[in-house]
This record gives sequence, structure tokens and C-alpha cells, in this order.
Amino acid sequence: MFTNFTTPAQFKYLNTAINIPCLSIHANKEVMYKHKKNIEPISKPKFDKNFQHNLDNLFAWRRDVRRFLTNPVNSEILDSLISNACLAPSVGNSQPWRFVWVNEPTRRTAIRANFIQANTEALNEYSGEKAKKYATLKLSGLDQAPVHLAVFADVTTEIGHGLGKKTMPETIAYSVVGAINNIWLTARAQGVGLGWVSILEPMSVNTILDVPKDWLLIAYLCIGYPEEEHLDPELERHDWQQRISTKNVTIQR
Amino acid sequence: MFTNFTTPAQFKYLNTAINIPCLSIHANKEVMYKHKKNIEPISKPKFDKNFQHNLDNLFAWRRDVRRFLTNPVNSEILDSLISNACLAPSVGNSQPWRFVWVNEPTRRTAIRANFIQANTEALNEYSGEKAKKYATLKLSGLDQAPVHLAVFADVTTEIGHGLGKKTMPETIAYSVVGAINNIWLTARAQGVGLGWVSILEPMSVNTILDVPKDWLLIAYLCIGYPEEEHLDPELERHDWQQRISTKNVTIQR
Repeated sequence: MFTNFTTPAQFKYLNTAINIPCLSIHANKEVMYKHKKNIEPISKPKFDKNFQHNLDNLFAWRRDVRRFLTNPVNSEILDSLISNACLAPSVGNSQPWRFVWVNEPTRRTAIRANFIQANTEALNEYSGEKAKKYATLKLSGLDQAPVHLAVFADVTTEIGHGLGKKTMPETIAYSVVGAINNIWLTARAQGVGLGWVSILEPMSVNTILDVPKDWLLIAYLCIGYPEEEHLDPELERHDWQQRISTKNVTIQR
Repeated sequence: MFTNFTTPAQFKYLNTAINIPCLSIHANKEVMYKHKKNIEPISKPKFDKNFQHNLDNLFAWRRDVRRFLTNPVNSEILDSLISNACLAPSVGNSQPWRFVWVNEPTRRTAIRANFIQANTEALNEYSGEKAKKYATLKLSGLDQAPVHLAVFADVTTEIGHGLGKKTMPETIAYSVVGAINNIWLTARAQGVGLGWVSILEPMSVNTILDVPKDWLLIAYLCIGYPEEEHLDPELERHDWQQRISTKNVTIQR
């Protein structure tokens, strides 16, 4: 059913022509900080021990949330998510992230149907106890989350002039993951939860949302206030997969 | 020279068999917090406005650093990078990140040679003014950075039992990008800079570092104290690529 892993060279399809003479889009730094009226981002910051401690806690308490309250999230918070997302690192400063707020009920219904189909097919991959366990897991908050945000990589973008992605074109997609990580942490710091739904057929999502075919779906995000807060991951708490030791993932060369 | 973009379905080669009966690696939460002797990570945190402000500034001041001091970075800081990396979200809690500290001079020399070759080939893609500009850019800190960290995704991992990656197997790689983002922010909060080198032939890096072939190189990281600190990206400062407006990357559906 699944093909075997092959070489990273197969990632190269992501590459596209470079040598672009000029760009039609130019910098507008003000927009980056538009929502932050009361801060001065150009003051060189000092990150003290207290901040570092809180940052550690932010990583520790960031969760993939699937159980949301239906309360709305205000627009200032939503703006802050995009603003900080756009401060993520990107290969060649290509800024390939494309954000789609999904508000129309018919589109949300279609996304939910796509999830149910993909999830049913995924369940069929398991058998015995694991199948029973899988069937009990709550794997998305699509029904409750008040905010849906689809995030794509524009893999054909000319911005950045191809720098840094000749041997590793997949870094275009990775740049967008960095943006999503910023969204996640920015949300959590404001008490807002986020759940990354990957049990979807990516190309169908492009169709449902009527976005260009050369936008690669990176994530479909559910956003809202969480029903409950936890230090342990949902899949650990529900006995699917425990955390492993850092010792098992680090070597010296 | 480059192939065209095709469908996300081609990402599916990343998928591997699931239905794994049991795991040989189990949780050891203590390790996750080993370096943090003075904090209580299980106390539910309150992230106030001051923290949110500083977090915004952390995103704003996180830079891709290519100009390093040669001063060493202490082991407590390096431990904190791995510890927070392992708190990143991962598909199915698969924790596919694999970290390789690259210390041996012969291996570092080979990595540097690989970079020079890949960079020369990349330069050949440009012509005219863009080629002249490219040739002036400093694209890695491999020579000066005291710490080299290669980060891979174990794409054949059985941890997580395949959950969440049937339709989007690339989420295994994306999980590792999240870990790298945590490293980046954790480093910057402690005054340490990081540069992500992608101008390398990934499969050669596996060979140079003698790691399994089914580990997919996600990033080769240079880590150390930066020579200087900036709010604007290096590629913006050196007139390669300006930032674009958030308005140009956000739509409603």
C-alpha cells in the first residue's frame, strides 16, 4: 500500500526556475507591526532569565488542541497571528506563506467531509486493539473551533530569487512550517489553542478553497479557546504514543 | 535544469508501513527537564502582556546569523536547545527529530567543501547583476560558528504508529522543522545566534556524518554568539530580497 522511502533527490520537483529580473511586491514594514501600536519593535530587546523561564513554559504548555470552546477569537489576536507568522525565517527571504481564513459554511462542511473520509481510510490501516484505540481518539476540532485557517506554500514564488533552495527545494515548504510554529506560540501565549489537522487529502483542500494549484497545503489549522489546558500531549494522555527520551535522539560525530 | 512543480501526491514516498505492535523506546519525562533544575514546568503558566510583548520582540529579532564570534557556547545552553526542541509538536507524537552534534574537524571540513561546491553551482544559475550580487553574499557561518548541529527526520520511525500522516506523509519532515524553530527561539532568547545552511547536497551530508540513509536531512545549523544583532534580515540589508506586506499573503474564503 505504501511506497518505500527513497532518496531526498525526489524532493527536487519542488524546485522551479530562478533568475527573476524584478519583483512586483515590495516591502512595507509598517504592516508587520500594524497591530502592535504600543510597542517599539526596533528597540533592541533584552531577554532576561524570567522571560527565558516563561518561554520554556510556553514550549512545554503548547498543545495540539482538538477540544475547543465555541467563543469567538477577536480580530486583534488573529492579526497578531499573521503578523508574527510573517516574521518566521524563510529560505532566501522567499516568504512563501499564504494564509486562507476559511469562513464560508459550505467550504467548512466540505473540509469536514474530506476529513471524515480520510480518517475512515486511515482507520482501515489499523487492526485489533490499535484500530479500537484509533477509533476512540478525537483527531480534530473542526466542529467546534470558531476559526479555521488553511496555510499553503507558494512553491512557485519568485520572491527570494531561488536563493538557498537549489539542492533543498523542500525548504520552501519548511519556511511555511516555521510561520505556523510562530502562529502556534503566539496563540498559546494569549490563551488561544491551535490544532493542526493533517488527515485531509491536500489537493482536495485546494479545490474546496479555490486556491491556485501550485499552492501546496502545509496545514489546516483549527483555532479557538481550548476547553482545557494540559502539560501532556493528547496522544500521550490517551495512551497512543508516549514521549521518548532526548537521549534516544541525539548523537555525536 | 529544474523539473516543474507537480502534485502533492508525490510527497507520498515519505510514507512507510504502519501497524507496529509495540515500541522499544518509552517515555522518560525527567530527561525533558533535566537542564531546568530551578523551574517547575508543571505549574500552569500565566503568560501576561509583558511576556507577549517580549515574545513579539523575540520573533522580530530572531535572525538567520552568518557572522559568528568564535567564543564557545556552554553545555547548559546546548542542552536547553535539545530539550525545547523535543517539546515541538509532531505528527502522531512521532518525535522523528534526530540531532547530530558535528565536532570532528575532518567531518566539518567535508561539510564545508560540500557547501562550497553547492554554492558554486548555485551561483552558476544566476547571471548579470544578480550573479554579482549573489557572489558578494555571505551565506553561511561554517568557518566561524563554534557549534555545528545537523538535524534529520527519521522518516521510517515507527513511533506514533503512523497516525496523521497517511495523506500527508511530509508532516514527518514538518515536525522536525518545528523542533528547529524551537531551537532557534531558545537560542536567541539566550543571546545565541543560529544560521540554517541549506546550500548542501543532503545525501552527501548523510555520508559525511555516517548516519542512516533513511534519515532525511532537514537542516544543517551553525550556532554561536553573533558578531552583531539586527532587526532586519541579512538578505534585506544586503539588497537581495525585501520583506513583503502581510496583505499580499492573506485571503478570505
